[in-house]
Amino acid sequence: MYKAPVEEIAFTLKHVAGLGSAIEAGLLGDLGEDLVDAILHEAGRFATDEVAPLAETGDRQGSRLVDGKVVTPDGWRDLYQKWIAGGWNGLTAPEGFGGQGLPHMLNVAALEMWNSGSMAFALCPTLTMGAIEAINSHGSGDLKNTYLSKLVSGEWTGTMNLTEPHAGSDLGVLKTRAERRDDGSYRIFGQKIFITWGEHDAADNIVHLVLARLPDAPAGTRGISLFLVPKFLVNPDGSLGARNDLFAHSLEHKLGIHGSPTCTMIYGDGRFGSEKGAIGWLVGEENKGLACMFTMMNNARLAVGMQGVAVAEAATQKATAYAKERTQGRAPGWTGGGMSPIIEHPDVIRTLLTMKALTQGARAISYACAHAIDMSHRASDRKQHWQERAALLTPIAKSFSTDVGVDVASLGIQVHGGMGFIEETGAARYLRDARIAPIYEGTNGIQAIDLVTRKLTLSNGEQVHAFLAELKQIADEVRHTNLDGFSATANRLDAAITDLGEATDWLLAQVREGKVAEALAGATPYQRMFGLVLTGCYLAKGGFAQALDGGAEGRIALCRFAAENLLSEVTALKDRVINGAASLAAAKAILA
Amino acid sequence: MYKAPVEEIAFTLKHVAGLGSAIEAGLLGDLGEDLVDAILHEAGRFATDEVAPLAETGDRQGSRLVDGKVVTPDGWRDLYQKWIAGGWNGLTAPEGFGGQGLPHMLNVAALEMWNSGSMAFALCPTLTMGAIEAINSHGSGDLKNTYLSKLVSGEWTGTMNLTEPHAGSDLGVLKTRAERRDDGSYRIFGQKIFITWGEHDAADNIVHLVLARLPDAPAGTRGISLFLVPKFLVNPDGSLGARNDLFAHSLEHKLGIHGSPTCTMIYGDGRFGSEKGAIGWLVGEENKGLACMFTMMNNARLAVGMQGVAVAEAATQKATAYAKERTQGRAPGWTGGGMSPIIEHPDVIRTLLTMKALTQGARAISYACAHAIDMSHRASDRKQHWQERAALLTPIAKSFSTDVGVDVASLGIQVHGGMGFIEETGAARYLRDARIAPIYEGTNGIQAIDLVTRKLTLSNGEQVHAFLAELKQIADEVRHTNLDGFSATANRLDAAITDLGEATDWLLAQVREGKVAEALAGATPYQRMFGLVLTGCYLAKGGFAQALDGGAEGRIALCRFAAENLLSEVTALKDRVINGAASLAAAKAILA
Repeated sequence: MYKAPVEEIAFTLKHVAGLGSAIEAGLLGDLGEDLVDAILHEAGRFATDEVAPLAETGDRQGSRLVDGKVVTPDGWRDLYQKWIAGGWNGLTAPEGFGGQGLPHMLNVAALEMWNSGSMAFALCPTLTMGAIEAINSHGSGDLKNTYLSKLVSGEWTGTMNLTEPHAGSDLGVLKTRAERRDDGSYRIFGQKIFITWGEHDAADNIVHLVLARLPDAPAGTRGISLFLVPKFLVNPDGSLGARNDLFAHSLEHKLGIHGSPTCTMIYGDGRFGSEKGAIGWLVGEENKGLACMFTMMNNARLAVGMQGVAVAEAATQKATAYAKERTQGRAPGWTGGGMSPIIEHPDVIRTLLTMKALTQGARAISYACAHAIDMSHRASDRKQHWQERAALLTPIAKSFSTDVGVDVASLGIQVHGGMGFIEETGAARYLRDARIAPIYEGTNGIQAIDLVTRKLTLSNGEQVHAFLAELKQIADEVRHTNLDGFSATANRLDAAITDLGEATDWLLAQVREGKVAEALAGATPYQRMFGLVLTGCYLAKGGFAQALDGGAEGRIALCRFAAENLLSEVTALKDRVINGAASLAAAKAILA
Repeated sequence: MYKAPVEEIAFTLKHVAGLGSAIEAGLLGDLGEDLVDAILHEAGRFATDEVAPLAETGDRQGSRLVDGKVVTPDGWRDLYQKWIAGGWNGLTAPEGFGGQGLPHMLNVAALEMWNSGSMAFALCPTLTMGAIEAINSHGSGDLKNTYLSKLVSGEWTGTMNLTEPHAGSDLGVLKTRAERRDDGSYRIFGQKIFITWGEHDAADNIVHLVLARLPDAPAGTRGISLFLVPKFLVNPDGSLGARNDLFAHSLEHKLGIHGSPTCTMIYGDGRFGSEKGAIGWLVGEENKGLACMFTMMNNARLAVGMQGVAVAEAATQKATAYAKERTQGRAPGWTGGGMSPIIEHPDVIRTLLTMKALTQGARAISYACAHAIDMSHRASDRKQHWQERAALLTPIAKSFSTDVGVDVASLGIQVHGGMGFIEETGAARYLRDARIAPIYEGTNGIQAIDLVTRKLTLSNGEQVHAFLAELKQIADEVRHTNLDGFSATANRLDAAITDLGEATDWLLAQVREGKVAEALAGATPYQRMFGLVLTGCYLAKGGFAQALDGGAEGRIALCRFAAENLLSEVTALKDRVINGAASLAAAKAILA
C-alpha cells in the first residue's frame, strides 16, 4: 500500500527545486520551512490513509451512468467531501475567494500525493484548479463573484471542454457553436468528447469551461471563444437555479482511470427547457478563447506531469515491497538459508534502481518547473526569465514524467512476475492508469513540437543556453567535491550536458533555417534526452545539497547509478536527433 | 482489422531465416517454396477471416467459471473446432500420430498469425503443442498410443502444470505430491496456479502434464517428476471414461488475454471419486521431470516470443491505418488542403518506422531461432552447432520479441491519441495482452541469466563468437554493395557488432572468473543489445537478398532507419553492461 514519501518530497522541494532559497529570499511571505513540512505531512497522511485505500474500489466499480446521472464509486463522494473540508482544493487559489494563495510548488507536491493515492480521484480537483485559474485570470467581476468562492472551496467542481471527435490536438477545427443573446449571455450548441469529470454526484454543481465558435468568428484557432456554462444556473443569491441545457450522453470505457467519468457532453439539445441552447457567459474576449486556455496550460500540463511522477512513485514502492517479501532462487553471494528475496538478484536491483532514479528525476524536474512558475509570479525581478524557464520546463516535465510513469509502472509489473498480471495485485492498475498521461493535455509528441519550435527559441536561444550553463555549474560543483565516487560522476554529467548542448544547437540551427521537418524528426528523442540530463543533474544537486550536512551516501549512490546506467542513452539520443532525420524521410514511403 | 502479412512472413522465412537454403539443401523432404506459400496463405486467410474477428468478443466476455465449468467466449468453441478441422494443430507433429511433420519454421510463422488474430485463443494450441512434444519425446509407448493422436488432431488439448504459489521462477521448491500405486500408476495431490487453458469447453478432454514430487525424491530440482494426468480417464478402446480427481478451482482476473482461462487447479481432493488422488502416469523417468520439461523449453519459449512478434505486427498495422485516416494539424511541407493525415507528421513517421523495424527485427530473430531448431533435427552434420545456435537464440527471441510486443503496443496506443485509451478502439487490448509475454515461460530476467551464464559459454564461447563472425559477414556484404545509401549503413552495423563483441567478451570473462553478480548485473542490457544488433543485421540481410532481385528500396530504407535511429542505443547498452555493475552494487543499500 502506498505511503506518501513526505521526507523525500520535502527534501526535493527545498534543496533541489528551489523552495528553500525562495523562502530565504523572502518571496513566499509568511511561509517557512516548518509550515511547509506541516502541510506536506498532513497531505501525506490524507493521501495515504484516505485516498489510497479507495483507489481499488474506484478502479473495479468505475463511475457509471445510471438514468442519465453519473454514479461515482462507493465512498468517493464522502472522500471528496472530506478532502475539500480539509481545505486542499484552495491551496494555491486566490485568497480573495477563500484560497490560501500558497505557491504552486506546494500544490504540485500535494497533487503528486493525491495522484499516487488515486489518479482517477485526483483528476477531479485538478480540473477544478484549472477552471479557477482561467476564471480568475480572464473572467469578469460578475463571473468571479458568482463562481470562484464555490470552486475554491470545492463545493462546485470545474471542467475543461475542448475536444471534439475531429478536433483533438488541432482545436482550430472545432465546431461547437455559440450564439449571442441580447442580455449579454450566450447559447451553446454542440458535442464535446473526453470531458473528464464532466458529470458526477460528488459535488452540487459543475462549472464547464467550453470552447466554441461564434457565427461571425474567423476560421481556425483565431475564432474560438471560451464560455462558462454551469450545470445548474445560479440565482442572484448564490443558490442553485434551473438545470442548464447540457448533459452527459455517455461515458467512455477506458483502459484505466476507471473511477474518473470521461463524458461525452451534449450542449443545447433542448431537453431541459423550452428554449434550446445551454446558457453560457463569455470568459475573456470573443475569439480569444485559446489564449485564455493557454494561460493555464503550463499549470495543467505540469499537473499531468505530476500524475506520471505519482504513479511512478506508487509503482516503485509496491515493487520494492514485493521484491523484499518474495523469495525465489538463490542470488549470487546469498548466504542466508533457503531462497533469497528477489531483491537480492542483480537484475531486480537494476530494475528497482532504474525505477527509483527515474521517479526522483521526474519529480525534481516537475518541482523545478513549479518553482519557475512561482518565481514568474513572485520574484521581484527577472520575471521574464522565470516565465521563460517555466515555459521551457513545462513540455519536459509533462512528457518525461508521463513517459516515466508508463515505463516505471510496466517495470513494476515485471518485478511482480506472474502476480503482476493479476488485477488484484494492483500493479497492473498503475500501468492502465498511467497510460493516458502521455496522451492528454497535449500528447507528448505535441509537447516535443512545442519544446523544439517554441521553447528553444525563447529569447533567441538564450534561455536554453542559460539553463545549460546552470547545469554545467552543477557538474562543476560535483567535480569539486572530494566525496568518494561522486566526483567521478561529474565527467558523465559533463559529457551528457555537452551532448545536450550540441543537440540543442543543431535543432536551433534547423529551426532558424526553416528546416522544420528535420527539427521535428528529432523532437521526441531530444525531449527524452533533456529529461535524462536533468535527472542526472538534479539527483546530483540533491546529493550535493545533502553532502553539506553529511549522510548523503544514498543520494550519491543513486546519482552515480543514474550517471553510469541511464546517461549513456543521452549520446545515443543525440545521434538520433542529429543523424536520424534523413533516414526517416527516406523510409517514410514504406508506410504508404 | 488485422490482415496477415503473408508476403512479408514468407520473405523473412525464405531469405532471412534460412528456409530457402534448407529447401535447396534438400533438408526438408518434399517441401518446396510453392507449398510453403500455399500453407502460409491459407493460415493467413484463417487468421485474418476467422480468428481476428472473434478477438474482441473474447476480450470483452472473457472465459468464465460457471458451476465448476469454464465457459469460453461466444463462438470460440466453434472457432477452435474449425481450426483443428483445418489440420493446423498437427503442422509440426509426428507423422506417425497424424501430424504433418513440417519444419518448426512453418509452425512459428503460423503461430505468429494465430497470435496476431487473438493471443488468448492461440494460447490453447500452443500449450497442446508443448504437451505433444513432451509426450512424444519422453512418454512410454502406451502413453503415446493412448494420447498422441487425439492431441495431434486437437480433439483433446494439453496443459503444463508447473507453477505453485511459492514456486514460480524457482521450481525446485514445488510441493505437489505424487504417490506410487502397484499398477504402475500414480496419484497426484496438490495445487497448481496460473494454468493456461487448464479447464474449458472447447475440447472433449484435457491432458495435463504435472510436475510433482515423489515421497522419497531428493530435495530441489533433482526430485521433480513429470506426470500425465487426464481430465477424463481413457478407456482401453480410446473412449472417455471416469472423471479424474482434478478440477479448476478458480480463474484469475487478469490484465489481458481475457479469453484464455488461467486456472488454479486442484488435484486429489476427492470430489470425483471414492479414492482420493488424481490418477496419473509417469512421463520419462522418476525425478527427471525437469529435464523432460527442458527438452521442450526452446520451442515453448520461442512460441511466447512469437506472441510478442504477433502483437507488435497487429499493433503496427492498426496504428498505421489510423495514422493514414486521422487528419489533424498541418505537417511541415504539407501542400494538400485542410489538415494533413497525422502520418505526415515527422514524429508519427518516426514512431511508426520504429514499430515496423522492431517488429520485423523480432520476427527475423524468432524465425532464425526456429530455423536453428529445425536444422538441429534435420541437418546431416553439425547437429551440435545447430543445437547450440538454437539454445543461444532462444532467450533472445523470447525476451527481445516480448519486450518489443509491449513497447510497440504502447507506441500504438500513443499514435491513436485519446482514442487509444478507449477500449473499443482495440489498441489498448494489444498492450494488455502483450504485457504477460515478458513474464511467463521464464521471465525476461530469467532469460537474461540463461543467456549470460549458460548460452554464452556454449563450446567455451565459440558458438557466440562464430555467430558474431557471421554477423560481421552480413555487414561486409552490405559494404560491398553499391546501392545508394545502403553501403554507408555497413559502418553502423559494423560498429554495433564490435560493441556486442566487446560486451560479450567482458561477460564471458566475468563468468569465467566466477564474478557472477557482475555478469548478471548487465544481463538484461546485454540481451536487449543482442536483439538490436540482430535486428539491424537481419533487416540488412533482407535488404541485401531483395537487392539481388531488384526493388529493395523499402527494405534498404528501413534498414538504414534502424541503423541510424535504433543502433545508437547499442553503444549505450555496452557501457551499461561493462560499467554499470559497480554503481549498482553501491546503490543497492538505498532499496533497503
